[in-house]
Amino acid sequence: MKNEKLRLETCLSPALYSKHAHDDNIVVVVDILRATSSICTALHNGVKRIIPVSTVEEARIKKEEGFIVASERDGYVLDFADFGNSPFNFTADKVCGKEIVYSTTNGTRCIHMASHSKAVVIGSFLNLTALANWLIKQDAPVLIFCASWKDRFSLEDTVFAGALAERLLQSGKFETICDAVTASLDLWSLAQIDLNAYIQKAAQKGRLAAKGLDDCIEFCHQPDFTEVIPLFSDGELIAVS
Amino acid sequence: MKNEKLRLETCLSPALYSKHAHDDNIVVVVDILRATSSICTALHNGVKRIIPVSTVEEARIKKEEGFIVASERDGYVLDFADFGNSPFNFTADKVCGKEIVYSTTNGTRCIHMASHSKAVVIGSFLNLTALANWLIKQDAPVLIFCASWKDRFSLEDTVFAGALAERLLQSGKFETICDAVTASLDLWSLAQIDLNAYIQKAAQKGRLAAKGLDDCIEFCHQPDFTEVIPLFSDGELIAVS
Repeated sequence: MKNEKLRLETCLSPALYSKHAHDDNIVVVVDILRATSSICTALHNGVKRIIPVSTVEEARIKKEEGFIVASERDGYVLDFADFGNSPFNFTADKVCGKEIVYSTTNGTRCIHMASHSKAVVIGSFLNLTALANWLIKQDAPVLIFCASWKDRFSLEDTVFAGALAERLLQSGKFETICDAVTASLDLWSLAQIDLNAYIQKAAQKGRLAAKGLDDCIEFCHQPDFTEVIPLFSDGELIAVS
Repeated sequence: MKNEKLRLETCLSPALYSKHAHDDNIVVVVDILRATSSICTALHNGVKRIIPVSTVEEARIKKEEGFIVASERDGYVLDFADFGNSPFNFTADKVCGKEIVYSTTNGTRCIHMASHSKAVVIGSFLNLTALANWLIKQDAPVLIFCASWKDRFSLEDTVFAGALAERLLQSGKFETICDAVTASLDLWSLAQIDLNAYIQKAAQKGRLAAKGLDDCIEFCHQPDFTEVIPLFSDGELIAVS
């Protein structure tokens, strides 16, 4: 007899992660602009595996070892890298069948922070429905982990957290007493009316626009571009479905 | 010639405070359930000064020195204290003209964290209009600092942050690029339709109800009960206006 619902929480910043960390969690790492949108795109376009590394130095060493390296800090491509963090870099002709080393300002660090958990997967609007359906089947508590921007609260990650939480709660298998989930659901209820209009007010939109990197924002908010679910396993992100 | 607008930010948890700390800030500490509502009530009812202390041990020493001590942890009154953290404790007959030492789980710690700033004041729905008007006159950047609950995001503090931010931005003297301000404004836009109904979904409401301490929730969300503005000065909270 089993009637208990599964715990659902949302963590709004890496600086708050210790308050939400449980070994039995499936953790969904979210960095809509742009790391987790790019990871979903890359695996959709046939990348064999992605090796996320936290530091610039690790990325540089991997480059010397002959890997394709995608790496940025604060939106700027690192000088030794093959390309940066836009999902538009990861086209099939460039990446299909390849292994890619990947390091970004916020997103890749969160993957490693959560690696003690039962599982770590990657979430974005691009794989929203497939991810929600996969999580509903797993029978484990879920933590939605917003990578945010340098530990500050991030609007677009939180809005996505609300979209995913809505699907999970509607399944009837989850419950929450987490105010961050409640707030994310309310923000999503406002944002979903016109997501691209809503996200114009996000601070990261302004930061990317200032660097001419905002061309991918509409793409990053497009639901269900792909069915891949990037799973972190043995130090690598691979596609499951 | 001075045309620049003043910075407005919101910090959603003490664990994020270092990202928002600036010496030139006026910091508004917010702990709606219940510390900052109680502090406003106490000063409204004629308390001469409140000495916030961070630790239980400091509170105990002050009790031995003869002070009236209000002190709680996790909603429970400490055994040596005169009373706990409900605003209903601070009635005029008990506290008028007195000095009170005060220590709570979340709120008093934040006051000390922010004490490097230009000024630290106390915010709650109870003094919303008076506080907004006072801040608009000060000509300084404002940080709204949500005490939250054990570093976790707190719905009622964030909703208040939205209510206050709305007043400050409407004055035309402030501007923001902080996503936490943006989110708080949106949550306030939903909550203000029926604040008491909205706040039923806050986690802290459930925590207080479980301990029979939820009798003050409606009172704590009542706007403009008082015009006092508690200011932290020389280690003490005093009323300014």
